[in-house]
Amino acid sequence: MTTAALQDISALADFGIEVPSWAYGNSGTRFKVFSTPGVPRTPFEKVADAAEVNRVTGAAPRVSLHIPWDYVDDFGKLAAFAADSGVALGAVNSNVFQDDDYKLGSLTNSDPRIRAKAVAHHLECIDVMRATGSKVLKLWLPDGTNYAGQDSIRARQDRLAESLQEIYAGLDDDHRLLIEYKFFEPYFYTTDIPDWGTSLLHCLALGDKAQVVLDTGHHAPGTNIEFIVTQLIRQNKLGAFDFNSRNYADDDLIVGAADPFQLFRIMHEIVSAGAHLPESGINFMLDQCHNIEPKIPGQIRSIMNVQEATAKALLVDAVALDEAQLGGDVLGAHAVLMDAYNTDVRGLLGDLRESKGIDRDPVAAYARSGYAERIESERIGGNQASWGA
Amino acid sequence: MTTAALQDISALADFGIEVPSWAYGNSGTRFKVFSTPGVPRTPFEKVADAAEVNRVTGAAPRVSLHIPWDYVDDFGKLAAFAADSGVALGAVNSNVFQDDDYKLGSLTNSDPRIRAKAVAHHLECIDVMRATGSKVLKLWLPDGTNYAGQDSIRARQDRLAESLQEIYAGLDDDHRLLIEYKFFEPYFYTTDIPDWGTSLLHCLALGDKAQVVLDTGHHAPGTNIEFIVTQLIRQNKLGAFDFNSRNYADDDLIVGAADPFQLFRIMHEIVSAGAHLPESGINFMLDQCHNIEPKIPGQIRSIMNVQEATAKALLVDAVALDEAQLGGDVLGAHAVLMDAYNTDVRGLLGDLRESKGIDRDPVAAYARSGYAERIESERIGGNQASWGA
Amino acid sequence: MTTAALQDISALADFGIEVPSWAYGNSGTRFKVFSTPGVPRTPFEKVADAAEVNRVTGAAPRVSLHIPWDYVDDFGKLAAFAADSGVALGAVNSNVFQDDDYKLGSLTNSDPRIRAKAVAHHLECIDVMRATGSKVLKLWLPDGTNYAGQDSIRARQDRLAESLQEIYAGLDDDHRLLIEYKFFEPYFYTTDIPDWGTSLLHCLALGDKAQVVLDTGHHAPGTNIEFIVTQLIRQNKLGAFDFNSRNYADDDLIVGAADPFQLFRIMHEIVSAGAHLPESGINFMLDQCHNIEPKIPGQIRSIMNVQEATAKALLVDAVALDEAQLGGDVLGAHAVLMDAYNTDVRGLLGDLRESKGIDRDPVAAYARSGYAERIESERIGGNQASWGA
Amino acid sequence: MTTAALQDISALADFGIEVPSWAYGNSGTRFKVFSTPGVPRTPFEKVADAAEVNRVTGAAPRVSLHIPWDYVDDFGKLAAFAADSGVALGAVNSNVFQDDDYKLGSLTNSDPRIRAKAVAHHLECIDVMRATGSKVLKLWLPDGTNYAGQDSIRARQDRLAESLQEIYAGLDDDHRLLIEYKFFEPYFYTTDIPDWGTSLLHCLALGDKAQVVLDTGHHAPGTNIEFIVTQLIRQNKLGAFDFNSRNYADDDLIVGAADPFQLFRIMHEIVSAGAHLPESGINFMLDQCHNIEPKIPGQIRSIMNVQEATAKALLVDAVALDEAQLGGDVLGAHAVLMDAYNTDVRGLLGDLRESKGIDRDPVAAYARSGYAERIESERIGGNQASWGA
Repeated sequence: MTTAALQDISALADFGIEVPSWAYGNSGTRFKVFSTPGVPRTPFEKVADAAEVNRVTGAAPRVSLHIPWDYVDDFGKLAAFAADSGVALGAVNSNVFQDDDYKLGSLTNSDPRIRAKAVAHHLECIDVMRATGSKVLKLWLPDGTNYAGQDSIRARQDRLAESLQEIYAGLDDDHRLLIEYKFFEPYFYTTDIPDWGTSLLHCLALGDKAQVVLDTGHHAPGTNIEFIVTQLIRQNKLGAFDFNSRNYADDDLIVGAADPFQLFRIMHEIVSAGAHLPESGINFMLDQCHNIEPKIPGQIRSIMNVQEATAKALLVDAVALDEAQLGGDVLGAHAVLMDAYNTDVRGLLGDLRESKGIDRDPVAAYARSGYAERIESERIGGNQASWGA
Repeated sequence: MTTAALQDISALADFGIEVPSWAYGNSGTRFKVFSTPGVPRTPFEKVADAAEVNRVTGAAPRVSLHIPWDYVDDFGKLAAFAADSGVALGAVNSNVFQDDDYKLGSLTNSDPRIRAKAVAHHLECIDVMRATGSKVLKLWLPDGTNYAGQDSIRARQDRLAESLQEIYAGLDDDHRLLIEYKFFEPYFYTTDIPDWGTSLLHCLALGDKAQVVLDTGHHAPGTNIEFIVTQLIRQNKLGAFDFNSRNYADDDLIVGAADPFQLFRIMHEIVSAGAHLPESGINFMLDQCHNIEPKIPGQIRSIMNVQEATAKALLVDAVALDEAQLGGDVLGAHAVLMDAYNTDVRGLLGDLRESKGIDRDPVAAYARSGYAERIESERIGGNQASWGA
Repeated sequence: MTTAALQDISALADFGIEVPSWAYGNSGTRFKVFSTPGVPRTPFEKVADAAEVNRVTGAAPRVSLHIPWDYVDDFGKLAAFAADSGVALGAVNSNVFQDDDYKLGSLTNSDPRIRAKAVAHHLECIDVMRATGSKVLKLWLPDGTNYAGQDSIRARQDRLAESLQEIYAGLDDDHRLLIEYKFFEPYFYTTDIPDWGTSLLHCLALGDKAQVVLDTGHHAPGTNIEFIVTQLIRQNKLGAFDFNSRNYADDDLIVGAADPFQLFRIMHEIVSAGAHLPESGINFMLDQCHNIEPKIPGQIRSIMNVQEATAKALLVDAVALDEAQLGGDVLGAHAVLMDAYNTDVRGLLGDLRESKGIDRDPVAAYARSGYAERIESERIGGNQASWGA
Repeated sequence: MTTAALQDISALADFGIEVPSWAYGNSGTRFKVFSTPGVPRTPFEKVADAAEVNRVTGAAPRVSLHIPWDYVDDFGKLAAFAADSGVALGAVNSNVFQDDDYKLGSLTNSDPRIRAKAVAHHLECIDVMRATGSKVLKLWLPDGTNYAGQDSIRARQDRLAESLQEIYAGLDDDHRLLIEYKFFEPYFYTTDIPDWGTSLLHCLALGDKAQVVLDTGHHAPGTNIEFIVTQLIRQNKLGAFDFNSRNYADDDLIVGAADPFQLFRIMHEIVSAGAHLPESGINFMLDQCHNIEPKIPGQIRSIMNVQEATAKALLVDAVALDEAQLGGDVLGAHAVLMDAYNTDVRGLLGDLRESKGIDRDPVAAYARSGYAERIESERIGGNQASWGA
């Protein structure tokens, strides 16, 4: 039980997690979106909140944008504001699910006019990338159907392939296109990119600049996610994570809240492959909805959960594990992994934060900061940001 | 293959399916609610649409209300309008999921003030029942939690039991309280009434006027729903169905669209127990969301799907089935059931409609009626009904 | 409702379904394998039973072998016996799950000696192919792990890729290697080929002679199988089906018994792509366990279920469907599909059988034939075939 | 993070976990049962192995029997041997799944002779209880069907109720009948006791001596098990646990191996209700299959996993949790729970063992003991115990 403690978690010092601008706005279910005092009204206020998360955790250096939710007249100004606040603007996320035209599909729609519109939206997102300096275009395709026969599964794949080619052609040399898959929702019979296999096939057809995004909440019940992580790394096609957690569907809960052991197993695969190091180019991002809990503390907790899982993964005794695995020692190998998982790493992480000049306890630091009270009193009037705007 | 055809489906002549007022309004997912031309702006317009469904199907004699969505100043006037349109007002559905007070629960909330408010809402619904002549109060409890530890599972059950007692005490002698269960959503860790067992326990504690509502979309993956139907009938506690269909979660698709064989198996259990007859008191209702398809045709198709499944169930050769079952003839018994399922009953249903003076084909009759064009041109301006209002 | 009947199902006349030799032996669960009178003791008796299924259905022209279960000294003699009985020997299935050496894996085992043994078994299977004239080697890899950390997910993929290369190198020019995937079982944490994506990646790495086998019971709950069918056809990588049905896990029930509508949707994708025609090269096979029902009637029913689903798929009005789909008519397009599904095709299939000189009703023909009574009385003594031998 | 450590885990000193005799025999899947050197040949050898687990853990005071697998001529002698070895004989488990008569059901069979036989078997088990001093009869009913229509769901419930009455009537005053439920397997369409609701209804009909057994692997995907635990405790009907873990179906892996956080949440509900105390009468048992790992170490690890989860549950700061819950502090309440979960309790448990005169590390103690080597060399010849005998 002591081997683990001898190792170190210093690799975590450079491990940053990108946060989504939309996590600071209101979110909810189809039944109700509850509002919260202090929620941002503008992209600038979202960036400010993200910067506060980075200030107390020291581990959230970038904030993803969502277009058109985060559309501003001058993206250079937004980027400068972010830099002044200590963070950078990250991936640009497109949105093809909120226009009436997209009722029956966007990049897969049988109507060429609508497909062209959806492609144009992505080219506009690439312009935003040029304005913000972002190198990553992230595409979650909501398209799907609700009824058997509603549309041709095959024709939709062909249209999708064509639309993606047009988007890909618009990328700069140093851009990447990250394609996300999702089991279901917002459609309930077919989804046009429902699994990693489909996402990967489209990426392979496009070229090296296209990679897969793995959202931890987007799988069928029982799916072994760490297996997929390993498979995508093996193909050099894991571009990014969207972290969150789920018990049922795409619940978008705080990562690590529903199944912390799963998060650890995922990070173990990442660490085993050296994919936690900056040179891997994998973008580790949160994608969550804080429907009922306060948003900034929800993000802080999420960052800490990823850090704890990663720290435990770093403590795995790789030599002992390898030896037990090669020796066919089923329980011994399992025990090496569990030894790291069962270690309480919170003290080690406190030390690490202290070494970076940050409070050992980000939750307490935020509570003490007065930030929550300040935004609640200052952000009066206007329209709170939410998925609708 | 011919035994089935010798039997008759005349029991269907009296088999009515209640339709929900909210199916005629807009609905959607957390990502988008698409709007549709011609959607009702008022409860009166919803009732008018429901009456149109009844006119062409001859099988939708009642319309359920949802309070406060269907709140009107004068319910007597709404009831009279319904009667004039050929339908009656049916079950009254309460709503404890759209008030900010209910963020952490309604009947289970740790705050006694909020519990009292939620109870009072149900007593108000009972007043609506008195005004409309409805005998059924339907309660779907959205309450739940998102995070382990967020609240005490046990305390919430105790508070729920107490709240239900207060509501039950407000019922008239000829009222029924129907309690629905749901696997998950809008909360994602615990649901306070997640399964038929929990719903039944609360009903047993309350008394004879309390019964269970089975929504076909509210179960864990793989759950055998016809088994639950049988078990509840055996306890005399099946109060109502909320029909719809699903592939993944609570998809709320057209009943019979995702798995028509499942619908048939359910109706086979119903027919085998004689529970399709009016004296059973079971309320057969639709509860669906027509997110992308036109709403009135969606309802018509749903009614027809239930009729087709029920017709097939009526064609099962009960004597041959019983004989094969008692004889341990696995494939033979299965074949008796499948013989009925594989029969094309659309002609028989056409005959039945004709005998009632209705068009053989409700879909075509509606298309020819000009109703769709009329409401699209007349219902201009105002706010289209949706879950939000 | 009448368009469908105008079309014809004559393509079914040449549509053959391969049956598995092991379906005629005893099978069961980990709890019990029930025995049945008349079960074959030898591969010759299995082939005889398969030939009887072909005799009454006219649609089961080949029988798959499983090595070593069907090992005989002289495969030429077995092939001749099959030919005399009116059937051919089909795919050769390897077995790497019943040797103590494979406890921790076969083609993925960390021990090179065990990997070499597993590869050698496949080369031996290729020799059987040469002796029987079979062109198809089917590989279901049972390998997996039960505990997190037990073995390296990545290393197992690398070993698997290497082992597959060695097997592939042993194929003749006109051979195909079909690689099956399975969600879980007999291992319960990782499976080394758990999904179509993994199977496809290995096939792509191997070359044109490698294709994917889709077993309808090998998916996560809720998986849309027809989507995968379409995707694999689009890649020209669908090599074969293993048909069966399931409600829960890999239940191996009679195909079409659990969800006949799903089978229809799958066959609709097949027919839409012309993949039901012999030139597609797709091998349509059964893979089922008749644990409690008599085996030969179970196979006959399965053949009929696939025929009925395919007949319905052939009746889909492709022109009307295309028009409704391109027009965005959600309910209209769905209705075109359902019109075909709701048609009773049993009469048409009876006609087709009659035109081939076969009894209209294979179940009745088998019951009348006296075959069951004959094998029950003749097959006394010896060891009944089962998975164990 | 320090509150937890101030509390104590001394309640664990009296917390015993019953082990199943069959865990020491061979087990497997329908594909293969791998054998292991040293596996017991007789019930006496199984008891010896169980006693060894108790010796090194100090927490496995009883061993469950399975009839007929553990049938001996003189149960008094077996009980005496157990006592001499430091353990007691525990629950008696019936077996109605391995006789050819039970192919289509046992207590639910349509044949009265077979039902009577199955009832008689349970009365024989009660005789074994009288001979061994056991007070608990545990009934897992395997009965179910594979095909829709195969048998009447309703009739089977009625027959089951009648059969259970006959068994219940045979109990002594101080006996308990524990009725287990299971989602599916060994049948794949209906299961006659598929869920806690069905088990509870039968228990309520029988009387106070009947209670429910919750096997942690017997639920639909996504089921919230701690909710059921709480609900059954609330009804005073939780009789026993069968602990194990699963990723997919009834995998029967080591408890806590697949989802240690779930095990902690379950034990949190147990501890919150005081149900971990001996006076609760709840029987905490293992029910697992060590298919590929050595059996005795597998049992030791399982005991330790339950202890660790329980220790963490005992460390939950109940006052802080209650305060946060009543205050509606979603993240604060969650954090109180996670604080305990994230604590490394292995040192505390080492201390506890030491205080009882046991080695701090049961795994190491067993490895050093030479027991494994001894049974491997001594248990040569004979038939290794497995599910088949």
